[in-house]
Amino acid sequence: MVPPLHPDLTPLEALVGTWSGEGEGEYPTIETFRYVETITFEHVGTPVLAYRQRTTAADDGRPLHAEAGYLRVPAPGTAELVIAHPTGVTEVLEGFAAPNSAGPTDTVIVDVRSRHVGLTTTAKHVERVERTWEVTGDVVRCTVRMSAVGQPLLHHLAATLRRA
Amino acid sequence: MVPPLHPDLTPLEALVGTWSGEGEGEYPTIETFRYVETITFEHVGTPVLAYRQRTTAADDGRPLHAEAGYLRVPAPGTAELVIAHPTGVTEVLEGFAAPNSAGPTDTVIVDVRSRHVGLTTTAKHVERVERTWEVTGDVVRCTVRMSAVGQPLLHHLAATLRRA
Repeated sequence: MVPPLHPDLTPLEALVGTWSGEGEGEYPTIETFRYVETITFEHVGTPVLAYRQRTTAADDGRPLHAEAGYLRVPAPGTAELVIAHPTGVTEVLEGFAAPNSAGPTDTVIVDVRSRHVGLTTTAKHVERVERTWEVTGDVVRCTVRMSAVGQPLLHHLAATLRRA
Repeated sequence: MVPPLHPDLTPLEALVGTWSGEGEGEYPTIETFRYVETITFEHVGTPVLAYRQRTTAADDGRPLHAEAGYLRVPAPGTAELVIAHPTGVTEVLEGFAAPNSAGPTDTVIVDVRSRHVGLTTTAKHVERVERTWEVTGDVVRCTVRMSAVGQPLLHHLAATLRRA
């Protein structure tokens, strides 16, 4: 049984749930690729959303990437995101998370930027990440910009997902 | 359908699955507490185990803590662990993961120590963490030592879980 959403998370209610769709990834050091993505934001009654993500290749369905972490709302309008990656990377990001006041009531924007990136000894060097989730009704648009392996901050991922 | 375990993970096969049981937490800055813990190590065919943990209070079942991350085996015998916490903390830990050669074939020891701790602005200060999982047959013993909020490295958590 899912408990009621913690009141601190009310502004992010439109983000809660499972979303699936397709995206495209690009970076100067790799070939452009298409992927199928599923993300979930769920809660257990505490003022934190648990975040999980999985991607598979659009062409043959092989597992590509995954992420797991937590989205915190320490004060109204603010956001803290912590993520771990199977690639040996951790991210601490901060920014804002709020309903989009310019839009309808079922919109949310989460926009966070690296405060810190942690790396295991064998991880590829990731310097900086910026992430945006923009919910409008039953659609969420996900974008990631990244500075890694000696490259400047560049567009890396864009996906459009629908509520599953 | 679960794909075959990646050959790099064969030495950790005894760890794969879901485990549940009780534990006790202590630290100089808090009251000693008992908790119910469930952990899962699962895989999708890649050479990484996805790790999830949830604890609830032993007395009233309220949600206490959660963790999510990934255990990597970059070379035989070595381990890299990355974790995110709802408390705004990330951990990068390194050490070893191997069958316990002194014991029966269904034993595994994972022993990892902080390489790095990442913190959001509002997270409590965690300085250093050491974690051990010791599998013997259908039992896993989990221990965590931690240096945080100005305290030295001290025993923090111990739990004994059985295969669920």
